[in-house]
Amino acid sequence: MKVAVVGGGSTYTPELVDGFARLDGPTGTVERLTLIDPATDRLAVVGGLARRIFARYGHPGTVDWTDDTDAGLTDADVVIIQLRVGGQAARISDETFPLTCGCVGQETTGAGGLAKALRTVPVVRDIARRARERAAPGAWIVAFTNPVGIVTRALLDDGHRALGLCNVSIGVQRRFATLLSVPPAAVALDHVGLNHLTWTRAATVDGRDRLPELLDSYGADLAELAAMPVGVLRLTGTLPSYYLRYFYCHDAVVAEQRDAPTRGEQVAEIERELLDLYADPTLDRKPELLAQRGGAFYSEAAVGLLASLHRDDSGRHAVNVRNAGTLPGLPDEAVIEVSCRVGATGATALPTAPLQPEQAGLVAHVAGYEELAVAAAVRGGRDLVRRALLAHPLVGQYDRAERLTDLLLANNSAHLVWAR
Amino acid sequence: MKVAVVGGGSTYTPELVDGFARLDGPTGTVERLTLIDPATDRLAVVGGLARRIFARYGHPGTVDWTDDTDAGLTDADVVIIQLRVGGQAARISDETFPLTCGCVGQETTGAGGLAKALRTVPVVRDIARRARERAAPGAWIVAFTNPVGIVTRALLDDGHRALGLCNVSIGVQRRFATLLSVPPAAVALDHVGLNHLTWTRAATVDGRDRLPELLDSYGADLAELAAMPVGVLRLTGTLPSYYLRYFYCHDAVVAEQRDAPTRGEQVAEIERELLDLYADPTLDRKPELLAQRGGAFYSEAAVGLLASLHRDDSGRHAVNVRNAGTLPGLPDEAVIEVSCRVGATGATALPTAPLQPEQAGLVAHVAGYEELAVAAAVRGGRDLVRRALLAHPLVGQYDRAERLTDLLLANNSAHLVWAR
Amino acid sequence: MKVAVVGGGSTYTPELVDGFARLDGPTGTVERLTLIDPATDRLAVVGGLARRIFARYGHPGTVDWTDDTDAGLTDADVVIIQLRVGGQAARISDETFPLTCGCVGQETTGAGGLAKALRTVPVVRDIARRARERAAPGAWIVAFTNPVGIVTRALLDDGHRALGLCNVSIGVQRRFATLLSVPPAAVALDHVGLNHLTWTRAATVDGRDRLPELLDSYGADLAELAAMPVGVLRLTGTLPSYYLRYFYCHDAVVAEQRDAPTRGEQVAEIERELLDLYADPTLDRKPELLAQRGGAFYSEAAVGLLASLHRDDSGRHAVNVRNAGTLPGLPDEAVIEVSCRVGATGATALPTAPLQPEQAGLVAHVAGYEELAVAAAVRGGRDLVRRALLAHPLVGQYDRAERLTDLLLANNSAHLVWAR
Amino acid sequence: MKVAVVGGGSTYTPELVDGFARLDGPTGTVERLTLIDPATDRLAVVGGLARRIFARYGHPGTVDWTDDTDAGLTDADVVIIQLRVGGQAARISDETFPLTCGCVGQETTGAGGLAKALRTVPVVRDIARRARERAAPGAWIVAFTNPVGIVTRALLDDGHRALGLCNVSIGVQRRFATLLSVPPAAVALDHVGLNHLTWTRAATVDGRDRLPELLDSYGADLAELAAMPVGVLRLTGTLPSYYLRYFYCHDAVVAEQRDAPTRGEQVAEIERELLDLYADPTLDRKPELLAQRGGAFYSEAAVGLLASLHRDDSGRHAVNVRNAGTLPGLPDEAVIEVSCRVGATGATALPTAPLQPEQAGLVAHVAGYEELAVAAAVRGGRDLVRRALLAHPLVGQYDRAERLTDLLLANNSAHLVWAR
Repeated sequence: MKVAVVGGGSTYTPELVDGFARLDGPTGTVERLTLIDPATDRLAVVGGLARRIFARYGHPGTVDWTDDTDAGLTDADVVIIQLRVGGQAARISDETFPLTCGCVGQETTGAGGLAKALRTVPVVRDIARRARERAAPGAWIVAFTNPVGIVTRALLDDGHRALGLCNVSIGVQRRFATLLSVPPAAVALDHVGLNHLTWTRAATVDGRDRLPELLDSYGADLAELAAMPVGVLRLTGTLPSYYLRYFYCHDAVVAEQRDAPTRGEQVAEIERELLDLYADPTLDRKPELLAQRGGAFYSEAAVGLLASLHRDDSGRHAVNVRNAGTLPGLPDEAVIEVSCRVGATGATALPTAPLQPEQAGLVAHVAGYEELAVAAAVRGGRDLVRRALLAHPLVGQYDRAERLTDLLLANNSAHLVWAR
Repeated sequence: MKVAVVGGGSTYTPELVDGFARLDGPTGTVERLTLIDPATDRLAVVGGLARRIFARYGHPGTVDWTDDTDAGLTDADVVIIQLRVGGQAARISDETFPLTCGCVGQETTGAGGLAKALRTVPVVRDIARRARERAAPGAWIVAFTNPVGIVTRALLDDGHRALGLCNVSIGVQRRFATLLSVPPAAVALDHVGLNHLTWTRAATVDGRDRLPELLDSYGADLAELAAMPVGVLRLTGTLPSYYLRYFYCHDAVVAEQRDAPTRGEQVAEIERELLDLYADPTLDRKPELLAQRGGAFYSEAAVGLLASLHRDDSGRHAVNVRNAGTLPGLPDEAVIEVSCRVGATGATALPTAPLQPEQAGLVAHVAGYEELAVAAAVRGGRDLVRRALLAHPLVGQYDRAERLTDLLLANNSAHLVWAR
Repeated sequence: MKVAVVGGGSTYTPELVDGFARLDGPTGTVERLTLIDPATDRLAVVGGLARRIFARYGHPGTVDWTDDTDAGLTDADVVIIQLRVGGQAARISDETFPLTCGCVGQETTGAGGLAKALRTVPVVRDIARRARERAAPGAWIVAFTNPVGIVTRALLDDGHRALGLCNVSIGVQRRFATLLSVPPAAVALDHVGLNHLTWTRAATVDGRDRLPELLDSYGADLAELAAMPVGVLRLTGTLPSYYLRYFYCHDAVVAEQRDAPTRGEQVAEIERELLDLYADPTLDRKPELLAQRGGAFYSEAAVGLLASLHRDDSGRHAVNVRNAGTLPGLPDEAVIEVSCRVGATGATALPTAPLQPEQAGLVAHVAGYEELAVAAAVRGGRDLVRRALLAHPLVGQYDRAERLTDLLLANNSAHLVWAR
Repeated sequence: MKVAVVGGGSTYTPELVDGFARLDGPTGTVERLTLIDPATDRLAVVGGLARRIFARYGHPGTVDWTDDTDAGLTDADVVIIQLRVGGQAARISDETFPLTCGCVGQETTGAGGLAKALRTVPVVRDIARRARERAAPGAWIVAFTNPVGIVTRALLDDGHRALGLCNVSIGVQRRFATLLSVPPAAVALDHVGLNHLTWTRAATVDGRDRLPELLDSYGADLAELAAMPVGVLRLTGTLPSYYLRYFYCHDAVVAEQRDAPTRGEQVAEIERELLDLYADPTLDRKPELLAQRGGAFYSEAAVGLLASLHRDDSGRHAVNVRNAGTLPGLPDEAVIEVSCRVGATGATALPTAPLQPEQAGLVAHVAGYEELAVAAAVRGGRDLVRRALLAHPLVGQYDRAERLTDLLLANNSAHLVWAR
């Protein structure tokens, strides 16, 4: 299997590489790993470390890198997209400008999430178009770039073989396995919703749902994982995704964000340190600092998913796919995140119970936003941006949507051709 | 036709009576109008005026009043419910306590609307149960008590022949007719959504949609009617209901409410003046001051609806009925407000286009809340209150929902048996 | 020394009684302790416990109680005022209604503090007037009822021999002594500002200021004591009073208050439990639960102050007295809280350095408010209330002041004769 | 009299030039007007128009311009400073970044005002130092650059002959004169406070105070001038400066600013249009559009003040001078804005009544901030910035001050050498 990683110069990449090196075994299915990135300096540093990690674990695959996207995509069986358009500077903007209007500043939801979608979707679509021409026939595109739900929907709308991947679900599974002292693979989650708007509703081990017991015994731990009051977990009988904090605790998050540096500012600092570490030619493993960068278990999620696609093993993975009737009350075209069976022909959502009213309403509301966000990203134009913001439950106000549109477009004019 | 009005001692009643007196003609179909209210002093004042109004217009029907609900309901063909549990004091509470948490204070939506639903639904259900035993077979219950959507849903869940009525749609129709210089009946609206969460999407006159032209020529007027920036009308191509202001302009409304007396305080003052006027034995028409009380065209909407039920004339009315497939993406059980054909067997929703994503999402979100609000009102219990608040797009935050639950229950303990 | 305690039925009283019992020694100077309170049931419970505490410690003084204020004041040498007009219900109102307008809900500052001042000052003035007629010649009035600064200023304006007492300073001294492992009396604080708006600027032990070292070594502990970020302590080089949190962390406090029960609701619960405990005829000491009621070291502060007044020992105490030139930039008539020498003729402020600009500005601002608050409490009238609110740095906005005036007067009409 | 205008390339300049041309008469005292600005293109456009305006009115003075500050200052009798460091881009930043933290975004007060002070004071001090070396002996520096109070205080601290000028007072005088149908010079104002924090407390015409009558008869007009509710005028019996709106209506202004473009964005657009107009070689008067730029009556205020300095006529002008005992409760070193007599030796404050408590407290609070703002601008350093923000009544919160410091320094690093 030949794997191309678009945005391969990311400081994240050693996480992914470590996953392949450790998990893909000495008889690795990854025969070639190609890192693609326009930032050549950074790419060389990250690429060098990637090679050393493969070498350290004795992985037989080759590692190469290029700033020529077309060349890098050629013959790939899987294209992983993890690029970040505009880098941390754009992230800081996404995390700051909504605060001007009293809204949460976040790069995957709300006005900041829309800004990221608008910057990202056109770039990803272009890459997918190129991949269609040069990659191996039937190649898969795995979208790990946020907002994953919107990016995946845009790719599916274009007719690509695409899956959206997120590390929230695997993180929950790992945590549950630790708490229950069972191997991760023994824990089957009922994890459902939209990307970054999911709830874990059951955790089945040996045919029995252990979630009620986990909520009882480890409420405080799990509340810390979800970064919200334990009461939410008890009231809903679920473990909400960490990202639901931006909904369930919106004003508290705004209050915090008003008085503290942005995540982007923090990450930019961590990235500088990471790149210094990576440049050390004796380093041949991922450094501990990388854990602070976010993205825990991303590598395991990705390696597992690729394995299922490659080996056709019907593995269970939480991925982003078309709703297609899985959740009632949502359009078939909506992209949901749900536990699926994955094989060589792709992912099939496992049947799942309908959402409770308090979850179904929020999901439908955000799905309406996402439909308009995809339209705005694909077709451009100020009015679609305004409508998408008006449609978002964390914006929803007209003058607010207007002003956020102004600020979003002003801050992103370098990335949005149509907004100049 | 015998009509019973529960909450007949309201200062609103002369509006309704005026409608019957003027519109129901000298050969009036209303043969008996019974006002039911526990507030006997007030009832006598309002009842006296009602009789004088009937006399002045030469309406042949009789007017009587009673504080004995069972007696008043006996043999009624139509039961209009317009009671207000807790009076203006409860309204002032509904309009104030959510502000403590930074949320809009309003008696039909948000936490205040839920408080009103919890107080009202059990009382209305009890009245409907009594009506079933004593009113004429096949009697209709017309719910005009807010929150109309939730009240209607609870009545339908109990198996009653119920319709929910609101005066927003008829007000829009009247305004359009004036602007277009045509008779009201010539204007057919495409008015759709949930009660107090509706959009007028078309206004057909002689087969042609005149709404685009109205928005173009009378944007400022219509924006004033909707109490929101004209940009909302232009962006959505609709005339949103005045109540959407609590969503589209939420923070601006909160800012206003923080610095001004509540509507309830104002209305209490108007009511005192109205009752003074009503007590004047020479007064035989509705006084002008009544217009400031709200409820414009309520009488015409009610008289028209009753006429269609009675005469089986297939009249077009905007009423609250089960969704039953009318709007995709909403459960069949949801109660929507939509243009219907009304005859002796009730109301049938006219086919209507799906909602745009920005409307569909909000409607689904609020419908989720309404489902839980009905459950909370019918079954009681703190957890359902908390879940309903968490489900409401204007609350949606967990700690907020908790605290609003505390305040709601503390403020309404006199009305909620289960909350003591 | 005969001591009368107005508000003696408070659940606080056993704290004070415990202080006299423990500290006033077996040859106690307190020969008679009279508890005065209109709530006779409560008074009997608290009085009974007080007697048992005196007995347990072998204190020779008598304890009696009465609901007849004039009788209770007769011949008193010291009148301690600790009453709470309106009880916890009024407190809950003070802590809630300002939140409606987005302002902190607190019973000693902001709009809630003004409400308490308006309720309290007339009652305290009346008591002081009665004391002047019946108490021993030259009797002292010790005001412990909040807002202490405003209450003291009103008493001094009336020509009474009054001192304002607060337990913040003694609490700081005790904590420092513990941290430095020295006896409390060895620590002399430079504690200055207005009541509940003070900063400890130095802590001298054996002639050396140990505060810098305390801030260095115990920053986190002291920040917890002050309930604010340690950065405030470091930036100002002081330990601010806990109450400065309502200024330095205003919005964070509002955010917390929006989502949590009020302090009054919590205290009301604690008081119910305390009264149950007090009623136990075998209880002869203050129960541990009393510590949660607040008021730590209040008894020691009061006993110490009375001792200095009685024994003319020039003791050092932080009390509330006229500024009279102590702090430049403040009117002489302002009442400040400052370290004083106290003897038989009263308290004399020790010379102290001028405040830093960031403290001086805030103090002058609040002093302007306090001047108007006293005027409003003494003379009554809506306009003085509005002006006082406009003058308060935590209100300061005109429409906000208007609406808060409405709410304050509506909530306190039972206590404000002139506002009906 | 030779006049140098630093920042002479401003689009404001034609306003000033028009004043000299019209008011300085055909026997004009201004013999030379030198415009100084580093923006040479802009300067040539504005300078050309200035010459044409002088020509049109037959003013005998010469007009020249230069980007060489030292050359332009040489021999000047008066140096007017009206520069804007960082241009409209910096203004937009000042108006935006505080909103991120929920604070008003304004370029003369709050965190935005501090940012402008930090950028401006060092540049102005440098110019004043150069002027001391090259300008005529005894030359006056007239500061019109905001924040005028802070800039003037810094200049006086350096020992310069400086006066701060603002157009608020003259605008009030002109409006009153129009309403009373008397010549402007007949109206003597009692105008007092700090720059942009002033109240007009009396308007004497022929020895009689006409302000009460003006407030009675023209309340709505004057409230519009002050941009605040008429109730503020009535409650305080004054006409507050327009800038007090940022205090008296803070949250309403924030709510507006959240939903609308900044003033800087609007002015940048107006400036582009103005420069296009100015470039027209046939234009020889100030265009009407300039009125929208702000600064009404600036020219008349400046020309009048210069005339008094030059002719030693003891004219009455509202200028910014040392307090020096004028207002009790304020340090002597504070710079206040007050009605003065102005002659050849400078300005002497006219005696004025003390401020009411609600005004005195706010003035003292802001004066504390200004003292720290000058220190921060002169000495630099993050801690003084934090202290100044903590001292400002519109900030006052610690974490808020921290985060605003971060944002202020990040946004202004190009201008603050010490912050890099």
